[in-house]
Amino acid sequence: MNVRKFAVADAALERSPGQDGDIFVGNLVDQRHGAPITIGYGRYGPDQVLEETIVVDDVMVMLEGRLSVSSDGGTVTAGPGEIVYLPKGQKVTIRSHAQGALTAYVTYPHWRDARG
Amino acid sequence: MNVRKFAVADAALERSPGQDGDIFVGNLVDQRHGAPITIGYGRYGPDQVLEETIVVDDVMVMLEGRLSVSSDGGTVTAGPGEIVYLPKGQKVTIRSHAQGALTAYVTYPHWRDARG
Repeated sequence: MNVRKFAVADAALERSPGQDGDIFVGNLVDQRHGAPITIGYGRYGPDQVLEETIVVDDVMVMLEGRLSVSSDGGTVTAGPGEIVYLPKGQKVTIRSHAQGALTAYVTYPHWRDARG
Repeated sequence: MNVRKFAVADAALERSPGQDGDIFVGNLVDQRHGAPITIGYGRYGPDQVLEETIVVDDVMVMLEGRLSVSSDGGTVTAGPGEIVYLPKGQKVTIRSHAQGALTAYVTYPHWRDARG
């Protein structure tokens, strides 16, 4: 695969699996490309809540808005330019704030394979 | 490891190995933490040039400024909110523009191990 550049407009955003809220994800690079990692964008509407057990190591880079992530270890809140690292196995609740949020994400290995 | 949040101020930026220009990197998560991936921030001064063969799969999320990445496949230029994917094995030239650049990066596996 060559060097690639992506913008959020390149991502086919679809509802994040297992929830019917206003949370959408779009992979840009994943198992279909033979890459070891998944790369994509995530968009959260205002005041959304996602409860999830993290099945892969997941990194979210905050591009717009704010997210709060609660786990056994407490709650972190991140805004533009900040990074949230979700280690595999963590049980988390992710909450968007009033302005929603846009993230870039990288997972190892592929979250879509791991969720089955 | 627990869920973690990072800001660029958390990174101990040091000169990127193998170059004496104005390019600095700081890992926040890596082999020291038992994670499978490395997470960090990179800061590029204005008009810097880095020639490198990519030894790991490397994702750069652009937070500030612009970078152009040239490889056999051509040149891509990315700005804030965009993602550049550098697959392992690519020989690239990375150029910052007049305003410099700030990136968040994720690599699989650990770039510091792979460079030896």
